[in-house]
This record gives sequence, structure tokens and C-alpha cells, in this order.
Amino acid sequence: MEEIEVHELKKLKLKKPVVIEGLPGVGNVGKLVAEHMIQELKAEKIIELYSWHFPPQVLVNDDGTVHLCKNEIYAYKSKKQDLLIITGDQQSVTNEGHYFITEKFLDIAQQYDVSRIYTLGGYGIGQLVEKQVVLGAANDLELVGEMKEYGVEFREEEPGGSIVGVSGLLLGLGKLRGFPAVCLLGLTSGYLVDPKSAQAVLKILCQALNLEIDMQDLEEHAEEMERVVERLKEMEQAQIPRTRDEELGYIR
Amino acid sequence: MEEIEVHELKKLKLKKPVVIEGLPGVGNVGKLVAEHMIQELKAEKIIELYSWHFPPQVLVNDDGTVHLCKNEIYAYKSKKQDLLIITGDQQSVTNEGHYFITEKFLDIAQQYDVSRIYTLGGYGIGQLVEKQVVLGAANDLELVGEMKEYGVEFREEEPGGSIVGVSGLLLGLGKLRGFPAVCLLGLTSGYLVDPKSAQAVLKILCQALNLEIDMQDLEEHAEEMERVVERLKEMEQAQIPRTRDEELGYIR
Amino acid sequence: MEEIEVHELKKLKLKKPVVIEGLPGVGNVGKLVAEHMIQELKAEKIIELYSWHFPPQVLVNDDGTVHLCKNEIYAYKSKKQDLLIITGDQQSVTNEGHYFITEKFLDIAQQYDVSRIYTLGGYGIGQLVEKQVVLGAANDLELVGEMKEYGVEFREEEPGGSIVGVSGLLLGLGKLRGFPAVCLLGLTSGYLVDPKSAQAVLKILCQALNLEIDMQDLEEHAEEMERVVERLKEMEQAQIPRTRDEELGYIR
Amino acid sequence: MEEIEVHELKKLKLKKPVVIEGLPGVGNVGKLVAEHMIQELKAEKIIELYSWHFPPQVLVNDDGTVHLCKNEIYAYKSKKQDLLIITGDQQSVTNEGHYFITEKFLDIAQQYDVSRIYTLGGYGIGQLVEKQVVLGAANDLELVGEMKEYGVEFREEEPGGSIVGVSGLLLGLGKLRGFPAVCLLGLTSGYLVDPKSAQAVLKILCQALNLEIDMQDLEEHAEEMERVVERLKEMEQAQIPRTRDEELGYIR
Repeated sequence: MEEIEVHELKKLKLKKPVVIEGLPGVGNVGKLVAEHMIQELKAEKIIELYSWHFPPQVLVNDDGTVHLCKNEIYAYKSKKQDLLIITGDQQSVTNEGHYFITEKFLDIAQQYDVSRIYTLGGYGIGQLVEKQVVLGAANDLELVGEMKEYGVEFREEEPGGSIVGVSGLLLGLGKLRGFPAVCLLGLTSGYLVDPKSAQAVLKILCQALNLEIDMQDLEEHAEEMERVVERLKEMEQAQIPRTRDEELGYIR
Repeated sequence: MEEIEVHELKKLKLKKPVVIEGLPGVGNVGKLVAEHMIQELKAEKIIELYSWHFPPQVLVNDDGTVHLCKNEIYAYKSKKQDLLIITGDQQSVTNEGHYFITEKFLDIAQQYDVSRIYTLGGYGIGQLVEKQVVLGAANDLELVGEMKEYGVEFREEEPGGSIVGVSGLLLGLGKLRGFPAVCLLGLTSGYLVDPKSAQAVLKILCQALNLEIDMQDLEEHAEEMERVVERLKEMEQAQIPRTRDEELGYIR
Repeated sequence: MEEIEVHELKKLKLKKPVVIEGLPGVGNVGKLVAEHMIQELKAEKIIELYSWHFPPQVLVNDDGTVHLCKNEIYAYKSKKQDLLIITGDQQSVTNEGHYFITEKFLDIAQQYDVSRIYTLGGYGIGQLVEKQVVLGAANDLELVGEMKEYGVEFREEEPGGSIVGVSGLLLGLGKLRGFPAVCLLGLTSGYLVDPKSAQAVLKILCQALNLEIDMQDLEEHAEEMERVVERLKEMEQAQIPRTRDEELGYIR
Repeated sequence: MEEIEVHELKKLKLKKPVVIEGLPGVGNVGKLVAEHMIQELKAEKIIELYSWHFPPQVLVNDDGTVHLCKNEIYAYKSKKQDLLIITGDQQSVTNEGHYFITEKFLDIAQQYDVSRIYTLGGYGIGQLVEKQVVLGAANDLELVGEMKEYGVEFREEEPGGSIVGVSGLLLGLGKLRGFPAVCLLGLTSGYLVDPKSAQAVLKILCQALNLEIDMQDLEEHAEEMERVVERLKEMEQAQIPRTRDEELGYIR
């Protein structure tokens, strides 16, 4: 097994595609958006990526079969804008793995002559979010300006100084290779999977890409989570004693 | 010293053997089964495997001598079904080590023209188990069906999404090399070494392998643990104050 | 990407420069001094250093753009004394990374025919500092004597036995290559960024280098922190209940 | 810098020397014995060993100078028995480093045609030791018998199953290379540096090596620690409230 194994399932010709990266992270915001796009756009899986920097585990599918922990790239072809969507089960568990895997994604981006990279994630604020906000950061000042037009907020003190993992490194290492790249972070509590924050991010992304994507499924998932939140609030008011651990528990 | 050193103690000719893997893990279920099989079948040690991915330690034997932390492979020849049984002191303590050591086991499996792999373990549920259950996962849909016939349960939400370590990777990496592989996980509390859960796993394995193995020793070990559990319950009822740590203490 | 990538932005001829190292650390003392010197001396950035031993992240600038986590070297030319000033966002997060990055700094020091190395940091004492003190350690007994003349204190029991990270290794690995090197550690609480301690270190450094540097900015930053400390003390007297975590919170 | 750098300071001819290893560990027992022997026998330093597996730090000497974290080997020549004594500032902080550094020690042992290896350490029991006991383990059954004659105890359930670090690996990896090796562990609380336990270990070692070593210094250090322990006991009786942390504090 190589350090990073790229299994190319299919070779497609794409026209200056845009990369959308949504891997697991805070509130699972990025992954929710990427998976929703793959589903709605019927994007096609073209690459599987294995690495010993991923956790040493298999994941059990609903039918009782398993698959090795991996990252995946899906392709979407259209008249408007071709896409390469990166998602996966996990991120690297080693420090250097984040660098190597990001470099591998950039190698693939170069092969496909990618024109721009969007990385997606959540920005945890430690409390329930009142108003949906999408924070941004970019590896190019011009991109900052463009993103502001779509309603992305750039705040001096947020997103808290740093963006960790592939979402950050695609901007940093991407810049060294000349890729314009922007990171969109949906404000989220950090305690719950947050499909509402994912909706906010997706709306802006659709505008930027001039795409239309049905949000029904995310909407329903969001409503389901609302009910979870309501129940949590009621429990709090009823002063049912809970440990701090439960209170902060991460609910999927 | 090489990254993984394979010391071949003996070369045997085996007929399409089946691999049984039982390394240390939750409830020590897998290891208990593997060791019991080695003892009852009088399987012969053919390989010792050392690695700097194992903890940097020696283990002290009852006679005051020591041995370097290692994994081992035992062979069992019979008219019905030849076996290669993997067990050992520890699993890798590094992330990548799990991958490398699993690959080495698969190399050996290829040399011996292995026909199938069974990996064994425990699935901790955080409370005493009322009814013995063996959960399964496989790297092949046909195997899922076959295992159901032996009473293995496949549940959508369990075994909790992932199987960690060599038990999981033999399925995941095994699939990439074309080995059919199944993981059998005995339900267990997770707090105690669990020979009763090991019995449940072994029963199913014997059916699947069409083997008969005396379970007297496991039975006795199970009764001994029952007494420990009884004592714990009495202590609880007597409300002897214990710290949470003691309560959750892992008892061998 | 190489393990450590040295991006040389500019090639300068320097006369037996002295290295000043001020990377992030306790009280951020070293970094405050290095950044202040760069600003006041209008030192010029000549080298950027990237490595997968740095945290896998980008840092967000005030204008919404990002930069990859890095270390930097600035050059200052003057009639009196040329300088190479090392600073950066972070230190290595791996054990070996500290060794490799220090070795790279020493390679560069050799190229520039460096005559001496000063490493700067803070020495945390766990309580507010009453009297500013600068502790020292050197890789050469003669240097110890010289530093005492500038008011550096050498105490048998402090700085607590060891100096961790690049500040320590530049002395240790530097000695193996024949570089005279001294470490200056400003006493600091360890809970707060400490520009006052930075001033104390800078004063001694200026004496040793026979340089004059305006301290207005550090002074103002120090006054600002004084106000923070005053507020903390008041809160303590008012016995506003705080958690231990808040009390020990690291305030920038 | 190489992964492990062996700096040979002096080349000596030794007659089938015995290796004594006493690196930092529980109660610092091993290191206390090794350092005492070096001092009393006026053993000569012949090798320094540096590695990026050691912590990335320098240690400050009493005169204000520093030295890079290292391991050392001292030689002692005599008519009775030549010795190679291994001690040092620290052990590896990486898992594999323990293996590599032990292998390097064994390379050196082979060069010097070493006849036997003694590794020394402490065995922490979590409470004050009433009666000095030295536990043993060996990589050879004959050695177990020999050590029993000197009063070393071999208990089925102790030393708790495993011996971690260089002290353990010299036995395990040593066996693979044919070196007879024994580990002597002085019973100790685990909370305090324990010169009394070191004395007990040294007494047995002297018998085994047929050496006489003055123990005055260890004796004095032991008395000093007794006074610390007395003070701790008094504090306990006076019920001065202390946090659990202080109670278990490791006192040098």
C-alpha cells in the first residue's frame, strides 16, 4: 500500500472545473453541503483515495458490508460549470497527512486544469446560532471582494485566526501553486450536525457558481435538528439535571 | 531491525486455509477465542512478528523470563479445514502501523493461498449484556447472507459505524486484494474480559467452519467472571461508595 | 512539498550577522521582541520557510486573505551590526520537526557566516511578575560571563532545567557546529502575552548588540496589558465567581 | 543530523565488559544507581548519543551553560570486571525511538563483545515502601535462577506484566541477538526519587558483579528523602488540606 493510493474509477473530460471540498469537520457543515450537491446533481464518483494517514478502520454500511476509510472525488458535467466535489469519511489523523493529502488533491486539480477552489466548513461559536452567517477567507484579495458581493462576511477577528485541515491547506498550498481559492464557513454551534448552516453555505455557493440546487432534503434535515434543539431547550427549562458532558454532547 | 520482522519458525503446506484473527481488543473477546482454539486444536506456532509499531516493551512470563511484544501465527492442519490463527500481545500503537501490519498479514495470507478471513472482537455496549449476541460485518454482500444463517446479526446502526484496528483493516484492505472476509463481534460490556461473549463467537465460528471444539475452559473462565460480576452487583446494592473509576474499572 | 521548504525571496550580502530568534512561546516574549525589532529597524524579509511539521492550517489576515503557517527570516543591514531575525506563526508540532527546522536555520546561519546566535523567550513562573528579570543560558562559559555584565541573571535552579524548542536547540545543535549562542528568557506569568517582559529582554539585547531601538510601541502594548491585569485583580477582589479555567485563561 | 548520532569520545579496549543501563524512569532508581557507580568508580565517558527521538530541548547546567539532551556511555576497567555504564538525560519520546536507540546500544555492545546486560529501574507500587525488595526479570531461564541466589525476587504477578523502554527492550531485542540480560527493579512508591530503592538495587548488583562500591552518598540522599517523607506524613496527620495533585506530586 502506498502512502496515498489514488484509485481512478473513471476518466472524464471536464472544462476548467471548479473544486468544491466538503470533508467532515465542525457541525459537519462542509460534508453536508458536498453530499447534498452530489445527490442533487447526480455527480459521478471518479476517484477513491486511501491513505495510512486516515484512521485505521472500516466503516459499516447499512447492508452489513464495510468499506475502508477513504476520501472521494465526484465529477459533475454541465453546460454552465463543471465541478469536482471532494468529500469523504474522515480527514488525516497525522499532522503531515493533512499536507500530503492536500498536495494530492492539488495534483489532481492540476490534471483537470481546475480554475478555482471552494472549501467548505463550519465555524463553531459555542452557542446556538441566532442568525445564519457565512464567514469567508480567500487566498487572493480580489476573491475577497467578489465573495463580499454574495453576502459572505469577512471579519477581522473571525474565523478566529486559523483554518485547520484540508479546508485551510487547499488555500495555503493552493496559493503556492497559483490556484485561486476561497473558504466558506457557516456559523454553527459546534455541538450539533448543522444542516441549517449547510443551507446557508450552499445558497451562497449556488450564487457564486450560478447553479440551482433543490434544498428540500437539507430543509427536512434542518427541521429534524430544530426539533432536537427544541427538546434540548425544554429539558434545560425543566431543569432536568444533566452533566456538562451531556449538555455539550455532539448530536448527529 | 526492520519495520516489521517476520520470523518464520516453520514452513507448512496447508490446503486453502482460513485465517482466524483474534488480537487484543474490547473485552479481549477476539484474543480469548483465538487462544482457546490454539490450545484445544493444539495448533502449531509457525510465525512470530515483531515491529517497532508495537509498544516498546517486553512482557514478563510466569517463570520470570520475558518476551518481546509480538504477534504470532499458528497453523492447524486437519482433513476438514486448515487454519491460520493470528493472535498476539498487542496491536500497533501508531496509526500507520495498523495498516502496515495488516498488509503483512495479507502478504502471508497470499503465500498460503488463504480462502477466507474471519476477524474476531468484542462490541462494547457500556452495560452488562443480558443476552449473548454476535454482530457481523463483511466485505462482501454474499458473506453477509451466509453469516445470517449461522445466527450472526447485522444491524443497521451497529456495530456503531466503524471497526478499528487489524480486525477492521483485514476486511477493508483484504477486499482490495480479493479476500472474502467477515468480522464477528461479540456483544460485551466493555468493562470486563468476557469469556462468555467469546463462547458465543466461538460457537458461530465452529458452525461456519464445521469444526467441533471443547469449550470447557472458556466455560470455567466465564463462571469465574460471573462470580466477579455478582460481587460487583452486591457491592452496588450494598451501596458501598465507589468512585466512578472503580465502577468502570477494567477487570481481567 | 519537501519536508522543509526554504523560499528565498532575496539574496543579501551581510557582514558576519548575528541571529536573533523570536518564535511563539511562553508569554509570546520572544516573538514580541523579534516583531518589534523587524518593525522598528525596517528589516527586510529574505526567507520564508514552510514545513509539514507546522500545524496543518492557514492563518487569516485582517483583510480576509490567508497565509500558510510559516517561519520567516528578516535581514537588517547597518554599519554597526548586521542581523538575521527569525520569527514565525508557529513552531513544529512534531518532536523531530524541532530538530530538523533548527538544523535548517543553522544551515542558513552557516551560509551567512553568522558570528553569534541570540534566542529569545519567556520563563513562566505561574504568578504575576513583580520585578522584571532576564534569565540566561549559553552554550559557552565565556558567553555566560559576558551576559552577566549586561544584567542577565544566571540562576542555578532556573530556567527550570530545560529550554524547549528552537530556542533551546539553536544552543545545543549550534554548539555541535561551533556557533556561540545565548538564550535570554524574560520572567513572565505565563498566562498573558507579556510586552513588559519583552521590553526587559529587548533592553539587554540592545546593550549587547550596541543598538538603539525605540520602544514606544512595546510600551503602549505593555500599558494596555497592565489595564487588563488591573481589571483581573479587581474582579478577583470583587470575588466575582470565575472558573479556574477563566482564571488561568491566556489573554492576548 | 542523523536519526541517532553516536559521538565516540574515546576508544578503549575492554575485556568482555558487562553493560549496566540506568536511564531516567520510575523513582529515577536506575539513573541513581548508574550515576552513583560512575562517580564512585570514576568511570570514563567514552560515548555520547544524540537523537531526534529525544525531547527537543537543552538542559541547563549549574554554571549557566547548556547541553543538548543526550544519552551517555561510561567505561570502567578493572582486574575483576570491565563495565559499560549507560545513563542519560531522557529516554525517547517516540514509540519507534525506543527500539532504534536500544538497537544502537546493542550494536555498541557487540563491538565491545559484551558478555551480559543488566538493566535497572524502579517498580512503582503507589504507596510508601515498607521493606526494600528488588524484583527481577531475565531473558534466559538460567539467569533467573542465578539472580534468585542474590536475593532478587521473581513474582508471578509482578513486575505487572511488562517492562517499558530501553530497560525492557535490551532484554527483548538483546535475546534476538544472543545477549543474556536481566532487569532489576527496585520497589518504590513512584511519587518520589528513591535513593533507598537505588541502594537495594546496587547492593544486589555489587554481589552479582563481585564489586565493592561505597554507598555513603546514596545513603545521605536517602536520609534527605526520608525527611521529606516524614514531613509529608506530618502534614497528612495535621490534615492540612492539600489537593490530590500535591499529594501525588513528584518530588526530587
